Amino acid sequence: MAVPSYTVVEGGSIITPRGFQAAGLHCGLKKTERNDIGAIVCEVPAAAAAVYTTNIFQAAPLQTTRESLANGVLRAVIVNSGNANACTGKQGDADAYEMRALAAESFGVDADDVAVASTGVIGENLKMDRVRDGIARLSGALRSDADGGEQFSQSILTTDLVKKELCVTVQIDGKPVVIAGAAKGSGMIHPNMATMLAFVTTDAKIGSESLHKLLRRTTDDTFNMITVDGDTSTNDMLVAMASGLSDQKKELNEQHKDWTAFAEAFAAVCEHLAKAISRDGEGATKLVEVTVTGADSTDSARAIAKTVIGSSLVKTAVYGADANWGRIIAAVGRAGVPVNPYTVDIKLGDIVVLTASQPVKFDEDIALEYLKGDDVLITVELNMGSEKATAWGCDLTYDYVRINAAYRT
Amino acid sequence: MAVPSYTVVEGGSIITPRGFQAAGLHCGLKKTERNDIGAIVCEVPAAAAAVYTTNIFQAAPLQTTRESLANGVLRAVIVNSGNANACTGKQGDADAYEMRALAAESFGVDADDVAVASTGVIGENLKMDRVRDGIARLSGALRSDADGGEQFSQSILTTDLVKKELCVTVQIDGKPVVIAGAAKGSGMIHPNMATMLAFVTTDAKIGSESLHKLLRRTTDDTFNMITVDGDTSTNDMLVAMASGLSDQKKELNEQHKDWTAFAEAFAAVCEHLAKAISRDGEGATKLVEVTVTGADSTDSARAIAKTVIGSSLVKTAVYGADANWGRIIAAVGRAGVPVNPYTVDIKLGDIVVLTASQPVKFDEDIALEYLKGDDVLITVELNMGSEKATAWGCDLTYDYVRINAAYRT
Repeated sequence: MAVPSYTVVEGGSIITPRGFQAAGLHCGLKKTERNDIGAIVCEVPAAAAAVYTTNIFQAAPLQTTRESLANGVLRAVIVNSGNANACTGKQGDADAYEMRALAAESFGVDADDVAVASTGVIGENLKMDRVRDGIARLSGALRSDADGGEQFSQSILTTDLVKKELCVTVQIDGKPVVIAGAAKGSGMIHPNMATMLAFVTTDAKIGSESLHKLLRRTTDDTFNMITVDGDTSTNDMLVAMASGLSDQKKELNEQHKDWTAFAEAFAAVCEHLAKAISRDGEGATKLVEVTVTGADSTDSARAIAKTVIGSSLVKTAVYGADANWGRIIAAVGRAGVPVNPYTVDIKLGDIVVLTASQPVKFDEDIALEYLKGDDVLITVELNMGSEKATAWGCDLTYDYVRINAAYRT
Repeated sequence: MAVPSYTVVEGGSIITPRGFQAAGLHCGLKKTERNDIGAIVCEVPAAAAAVYTTNIFQAAPLQTTRESLANGVLRAVIVNSGNANACTGKQGDADAYEMRALAAESFGVDADDVAVASTGVIGENLKMDRVRDGIARLSGALRSDADGGEQFSQSILTTDLVKKELCVTVQIDGKPVVIAGAAKGSGMIHPNMATMLAFVTTDAKIGSESLHKLLRRTTDDTFNMITVDGDTSTNDMLVAMASGLSDQKKELNEQHKDWTAFAEAFAAVCEHLAKAISRDGEGATKLVEVTVTGADSTDSARAIAKTVIGSSLVKTAVYGADANWGRIIAAVGRAGVPVNPYTVDIKLGDIVVLTASQPVKFDEDIALEYLKGDDVLITVELNMGSEKATAWGCDLTYDYVRINAAYRT
């Protein structure tokens, strides 16, 4: 393993990169007293980029955010949890624009420099009196210290059991640049009041175009490679903002000598958040990682990794600590991409269970012990080429059914 | 609703069409005393056709059956349950050919007129001594009475809770023609020892080419529109055999004046079996039917219906009797086909919950009562065109997780 380009900043959060403040508080959108509205504000115009859900039914705030990002600049993000503002009609659109305008006023920035994100129940209009009250109080709550990051990270959670964040530092032009991320995600939607939102801040000097390109590429390898239940939300959004306030000398782009180091550090933040979302999937007891190697294309490797990680039968087998490789090979075979049926090897951790598509005798007790752990690695070697991909997910448990079935009854 | 072309034959089974005998018995492949080997034998060469799983890892018997069907004629089908003979290497291939040869000898027919089907555990070689004993005893057990059909239907089951069969009669050239089917299916594979196998017999006079065309078309609307867990098995197979022994005068093909009546009756048998498999899905408490109307193409309608019926969040909501239309619309939006985001109507039974993609107030108590029933119909009207499709599935329950996780631990 090569030495990583970056160092983890213990205790760092979304406000650790220079130029960012954050806040979170409770305004009454959630039934409990937990934070349900939050903001990240940058003291200078930040180069910014975003990626969005591919669901055709996109929630109102996504369109608002798209408009704000047309010029590649953001000063602030306003986020609420407890209500997704999705399938809410013209009133929903109006509410998203009003959130943007109120945040701009509260933080003293232009409305078209504000991104809006929502997560929670689908199909109910926002209680705008509470949102107005929350946004008015947010400007006074903004902090550039650890508490600001903590309050923000709490404000975006729904059915999540833990907050998800990571902060790293990487040397660019011999100077430290900081990258931080915060995310939420657990299941898809109502009644789970959950979807995936992620925010990445950095003080790197980087143009919005380079940032966007990096964001898309990194998303393909991280956030787009996770699944909890296969259900793509209407609200998924990932926003990145770069303040440019580090001491770095030359603007980052693909020609910069430290581009690879930066991209690696950026990917580490995104991968950490993506894995944290998978591990905290609804009802999950463990993180499952599927790596497909020896593929003839990256697309094939991704398709197979995502099919295996998404298989209900593989997920229940992992929950039951059952070394059931037949379910894995069957998932490989239905991924919709060409596979040589005679050359597949499968490992559970280090335990070889299949070689050249044929069963291998293995110690069931050792496999059982391995599968009882918190982390399960499945490796599928296709022996067809040299491309690879990794996907992350979780097991399928009684609690997943309970969380998603026991809502109104 | 138009009057159907066919009449259900109460108490009919796979041997009711003229020319067929069947048998089933226990030879020791299942741990319990239940039947685990069975056969259908036709007294004349039957026009025959089959469709197979699309999984790349196809079990050994599928290749054997393909070879037997090369000339479009079958005299017999030999089936075992308890072992799928999949991922079993060269020995598995040899075992499938030996099953074919033994059955041919036992029933006094040519080996290349015998189809072979297996269902059960993946990755273990067949206990051929037991298979040999079973096949030797089958010829003496063949019956053309109801008991023969009953024993056969039992012999193909694995985790299935109920047998699945239907027999209908339809007038062709003013004479009764009989079509019967038997199927099994519950989850995918080991440890469920389940996959989908279906057999259709008829005494219609029809060439194997017309039969094959009808089989493929009907499969697209029936067996290919069901899902229990999204996991395509390595062993799925549907075999149809036509003895031609009815009193029907002219051979059936698309030009025959009664073709539509025959196709409708044939589809009714397949649809019945497909729905029965869905209702008996692992852990299922109810049958869920999703109909998509107003689509701009049949392919789009199918893709959306299958995405909705396969959504874990929709399935758990149905289990919890939760009128959670947000999950339905989110599934519609991720089906990968164009949808107008402003024109979708959704009904649960007769209860309108969404009109023009906007929530409609409905009585929660009435919806709860409806969703507690054994049959749940979800209708999605896209208002884009005039094509439609229906898919069938089941709810996702604690028992699904129990059945699939609690195997070895």
